[in-house]
Amino acid sequence: MDPRHEVLFEPIKIGPKIMRNRFYVAPHCSGLGVDEPGAQAYLRGTRALGGWGAVHTEYCGVSTDSDDSPWVQARLLNAADAANLSLMVTRVHEGGALAGIQLVHMGPDSSGHTSRLAAPGPSQLVSPLSGHACYEMSLDDIRRVQRQYVDAAVRARDIGFDIIQIAAREGFSLPLMFLWKYWNKRTDEYGGTLENRVRFWRETLEQVRDAVGDECAVTAGFCVDALHDGDPDSFRVADEGIAVIELLDDVVDLWDVQVGHLSDDVSSSRFFESFWQRSYIEQIKPHTTKPVAAVGRFTDPDLMADMVREGVVDIIAAARPAIADPYIPNKIREGRIGDIRECIGCNICVSRFNMGGGRIVCTQNATTGEEYRRGWNPEIFTRAANADHPVLVVGAGPSGLECARVLAERGFDAVHVVEARDRLGGAAEWTSRLPGLTKWRRVVEYREHQLSKLGVNVITNRRMTTEDVLNYGASIVIIATGSVWDGSGTSSLTHRSIPGADSSQDWVLTPEQIMLEGKVPTGRRVLVYDEDGYHMGSSIAHKLALDGFEVTLASPAEQIGSYMFYADEGSLMHRALLRLGVILRPSTVVSTVTRAMVRTHHPYDEETTDEVEVDSVVLVTSRRSTDALYRELMSDPIRLKTHGIGSVFRIGDSVEPRLIADAVFDGHRLAREIDTHDPSTPLDFVRENRVLGSTDSQYEEVLQIQDRPSSDITAIAGRSNP
Amino acid sequence: MDPRHEVLFEPIKIGPKIMRNRFYVAPHCSGLGVDEPGAQAYLRGTRALGGWGAVHTEYCGVSTDSDDSPWVQARLLNAADAANLSLMVTRVHEGGALAGIQLVHMGPDSSGHTSRLAAPGPSQLVSPLSGHACYEMSLDDIRRVQRQYVDAAVRARDIGFDIIQIAAREGFSLPLMFLWKYWNKRTDEYGGTLENRVRFWRETLEQVRDAVGDECAVTAGFCVDALHDGDPDSFRVADEGIAVIELLDDVVDLWDVQVGHLSDDVSSSRFFESFWQRSYIEQIKPHTTKPVAAVGRFTDPDLMADMVREGVVDIIAAARPAIADPYIPNKIREGRIGDIRECIGCNICVSRFNMGGGRIVCTQNATTGEEYRRGWNPEIFTRAANADHPVLVVGAGPSGLECARVLAERGFDAVHVVEARDRLGGAAEWTSRLPGLTKWRRVVEYREHQLSKLGVNVITNRRMTTEDVLNYGASIVIIATGSVWDGSGTSSLTHRSIPGADSSQDWVLTPEQIMLEGKVPTGRRVLVYDEDGYHMGSSIAHKLALDGFEVTLASPAEQIGSYMFYADEGSLMHRALLRLGVILRPSTVVSTVTRAMVRTHHPYDEETTDEVEVDSVVLVTSRRSTDALYRELMSDPIRLKTHGIGSVFRIGDSVEPRLIADAVFDGHRLAREIDTHDPSTPLDFVRENRVLGSTDSQYEEVLQIQDRPSSDITAIAGRSNP
Repeated sequence: MDPRHEVLFEPIKIGPKIMRNRFYVAPHCSGLGVDEPGAQAYLRGTRALGGWGAVHTEYCGVSTDSDDSPWVQARLLNAADAANLSLMVTRVHEGGALAGIQLVHMGPDSSGHTSRLAAPGPSQLVSPLSGHACYEMSLDDIRRVQRQYVDAAVRARDIGFDIIQIAAREGFSLPLMFLWKYWNKRTDEYGGTLENRVRFWRETLEQVRDAVGDECAVTAGFCVDALHDGDPDSFRVADEGIAVIELLDDVVDLWDVQVGHLSDDVSSSRFFESFWQRSYIEQIKPHTTKPVAAVGRFTDPDLMADMVREGVVDIIAAARPAIADPYIPNKIREGRIGDIRECIGCNICVSRFNMGGGRIVCTQNATTGEEYRRGWNPEIFTRAANADHPVLVVGAGPSGLECARVLAERGFDAVHVVEARDRLGGAAEWTSRLPGLTKWRRVVEYREHQLSKLGVNVITNRRMTTEDVLNYGASIVIIATGSVWDGSGTSSLTHRSIPGADSSQDWVLTPEQIMLEGKVPTGRRVLVYDEDGYHMGSSIAHKLALDGFEVTLASPAEQIGSYMFYADEGSLMHRALLRLGVILRPSTVVSTVTRAMVRTHHPYDEETTDEVEVDSVVLVTSRRSTDALYRELMSDPIRLKTHGIGSVFRIGDSVEPRLIADAVFDGHRLAREIDTHDPSTPLDFVRENRVLGSTDSQYEEVLQIQDRPSSDITAIAGRSNP
Repeated sequence: MDPRHEVLFEPIKIGPKIMRNRFYVAPHCSGLGVDEPGAQAYLRGTRALGGWGAVHTEYCGVSTDSDDSPWVQARLLNAADAANLSLMVTRVHEGGALAGIQLVHMGPDSSGHTSRLAAPGPSQLVSPLSGHACYEMSLDDIRRVQRQYVDAAVRARDIGFDIIQIAAREGFSLPLMFLWKYWNKRTDEYGGTLENRVRFWRETLEQVRDAVGDECAVTAGFCVDALHDGDPDSFRVADEGIAVIELLDDVVDLWDVQVGHLSDDVSSSRFFESFWQRSYIEQIKPHTTKPVAAVGRFTDPDLMADMVREGVVDIIAAARPAIADPYIPNKIREGRIGDIRECIGCNICVSRFNMGGGRIVCTQNATTGEEYRRGWNPEIFTRAANADHPVLVVGAGPSGLECARVLAERGFDAVHVVEARDRLGGAAEWTSRLPGLTKWRRVVEYREHQLSKLGVNVITNRRMTTEDVLNYGASIVIIATGSVWDGSGTSSLTHRSIPGADSSQDWVLTPEQIMLEGKVPTGRRVLVYDEDGYHMGSSIAHKLALDGFEVTLASPAEQIGSYMFYADEGSLMHRALLRLGVILRPSTVVSTVTRAMVRTHHPYDEETTDEVEVDSVVLVTSRRSTDALYRELMSDPIRLKTHGIGSVFRIGDSVEPRLIADAVFDGHRLAREIDTHDPSTPLDFVRENRVLGSTDSQYEEVLQIQDRPSSDITAIAGRSNP
């Protein structure tokens, strides 16, 4: 270990518990809750194996009416929930970490979509999350909800949780709503002065402490600053934030602090540096005698160690960095800094959850969420049965690099990656050169480093023909040739080209023509047409505006780049574009384009038309797989055989253009299953729904195999759901 | 029975099966799938009890890569799925109906969010649903997917399904995608001519017939017309629709036909009459020798009988009408037409599903989705233990009317409903006078009729004071006094009033001032400010535009009235407003209002500002509960006691302003649980997630109670999850 990092491995006391080091996985959503108990336990448990000192659940509801479905909380209402969460505690303890639970009542943010119940709140006001109001809690209601917190805390203690966090964090939960003037307009002893507004939280903390006794640490998840500039009533660290710390310090064993709402907390690397929150957080420490933990998308061990050594925080908290690499603490301890698979801050992890409570995924770590149901551990690989076969991977984009990496980890000693361009990374390479996306380059760099370490042959500047592949000498061929942006305007709207759109004209461009070929729009006025719906349209508009063009960003969608909003960067991107003078034209379908004029109509009314004068058009409409090589190879099975090629697979965008996360997953999946009966058909995964007539024993077989991660995981091959 | 309706009760042969009558519940989504097997079985089984001749699942995926999560399909991939769906078959058979299953592969509409797999499709094109493309299926891929259909069909047969539908319906599933030129650009034997494009479907039907033999009817779910006017390649009933019928008639036992995409199929009553699809559907019958079933939001038995008698269809298919009233067939057979609880066509049923796969709810039928988990049957009520207590319900809106109805059904013989206004219905009454919403009046009319039949005293024109309530003579008091629209512009954005907004000014109005008080905006130019997000802003703008005002509809949201899009009427509302010249201003926050000028800024950039000249402003921002009476009563428990009042409850908008569906549910829930230990605290419901260490026996207790619906359901009181 680098001696500078030793400070990160000093144990620390949290109330009655000792945490083995300074690494703490903060509560973060997963889309699992208690409804996938196996997946929950193994997702969290993997971090304990990776060396974290404490690992938390996501937000866990204490009451039936704390129901923000379709989003997915954990839940601890009864023995059934306790049975499920207890497996997580077991897995976390087996890994040597403390198990933490974050208790919440969502108040008016509750949708009631599952429970169908009304929501309690400090005052009757509408929630921007649920879209509806609540009822103003009576004193009886306050007592009832506090009892629910206590009941959940006792259940948590009884199944072995070490840390019970009562959260007022990220803009949500009733303790925070009582605290903020935005939510609390009461005139009784729970409203008005700060002492009154903090009363609900203090009483809850006290009652929970009384109930759980000395068996658990009772901690506070605390949003120290609401971040709403310009609002005189906003909650500020410098006055009310510090005052709350002082008012509650005696009943809190640790402060888990952060800044702003969830969307601020999940700050994308496009707009935020690591630990941009420092100026807020560093105000806290002088006012508390208890340990302070804070998140900040920490991936750099030097920064982590500096923050602890300088006394800004005592504990490094993380969500996204632990998602991208659950083994960060072990890697730091073992001095393997170069092996850290750094979070790129793209926020794909939270996007599925934001869409509707979906399961967590990660661009960098294909095993995220797959620890239980597919039996994958990010750091444990078994030797493949066919590891002696030479492998050729054509294409060094994210899927090709990831596939080659995992094949090498699985013992293949002859893996060649051949890339047509002069550099690695495929679309991820040029995408990372768009404004703000430098960190995305880590997708390539991490894999480049690993391939070099693992002895994989990486060859650049070589475009492979069918003959080249046939004669390469490989017995397994993996095509990972990516995709290209369409130059005809074809999109899901019509599945036809846009009349007049043709990227062979110099005034019609695609993202790749700009970023790879270096083409520059003609004239000053550029219309970027986004029918893709994620970031590429906005990113290109951003770049062109920075380059001095007069940019109009048009899209048929009401919300331009709507997937960016799922990734918690949509509103910031909109602001950035507006500040650069970009004209946003949502609800705009491009009907035809000519050199001087784009004709448009409204997506819901073809009679509502308009015209935009332009000099150039950039089409960000759809992508096509580059699959000619794959098709040619597959067209003649006998020829493959005579050249000694036993199997040809394709992965990533060459199958179907999707997210980088999907491409990485696709490459990883193939390599994990390269020695099954039919690697092109993914193995089943375990689904954890209720099954009538079933018992746990039908799942246990899988569990037992997964409990022995060093054994041959391919033994799971052919497993099916009970 | 009315003799005109007898034709609806003639049995009909569907392949090897006999359907007992002409009532057929079409496949429709529920948000349940196979993951809530009990809820699925009881939702569908209740329709069989109610007299339907056939009852279907929702769309049921045949393959892991047919994964459109977060939306929720059924699924029939393995023994676990079969075990779950077999309970539905049992319940449907117990009710005397045929059990049907709709098999689908979602192709490129698959998101892959759960499975993480790429999607197969006829050609590589982007899906507007999933937002990503697919891979073009090889001939091997086609065979594989057809085998998956066959495997699922055999499983369905083995667990007792009578009807196996291979769907090309509502714009989705691979058979339809091969059929439509929009999706299919192939040049092989599966593309080009209609014969080629229908080949995938025909082969699949043939293979399924061969596999299931004579034990099941094999039917076709068929979208006869794509409805995309202006697209020359669009699929049309008059040519390709009829041609497909003729090409496949020999391999199909029944045609389940409809028109357009899902959003066309779920046509709201605001824009469509019952069976507006007739002109398309009636072209089909002459070209087939097999029975034809079609949906059309049928609630009128005369129309149903006419359509069968005239030979337009053989079978009345329904989704929404069966959701609102599962007992329609029995009620028609028994001549109880007035007891039919008619679907209002508001589409709340589908809104939660569209939001993210959420559970089904219904404005008219509070028991929808609660048949299993809360043990509710819409037509079966038990006598309450406290039915001899006199009850006063204050307020005759949806919650008050529903509560009184269910109390009367439960044997209360002294129920009084007292209403301040001269007519019943509360907010639902004036809302139904907005353009297009006449059918919403059924919420009031159905209950008015039932209360009259049940002998409930309904008193209008009497505004109750606290003294009035205390001296009324009731021992149970239920407050259902509704809510009012706020006149200060307070919304979730700031939780403060908008500077200058004050509805006591004649140029600032609320929806109720317009619809109830008859106030008219001053001047010609009206800005309607929608921060509510459902239909009220758009509905008021619609009305004012029809009244001749120059209307601007502004909202902070990118998508104005976004909840209308979940209810599949957003795009039609946008078009209607645009055609009336309404100026739509999304992404617009109103900062201040004065008599002549509204100042605005962009929601994501306070520096992007604008001004709008107006004469009047209508505030559709938030609502406040009318709860003064409730609070006054609750403030003095001793006074209540001395007046003989044992309990006071509140329901509906007076608790929290929400949807009409929520108000109806709230009233229904209280009445169902009026004799529990604490009726103000809802009983638990059964959650069907996997529970580690549990067995079915922990659910069976609840199931057994629910299997005896005529017994005392209150025996379930106090039940909790296993």
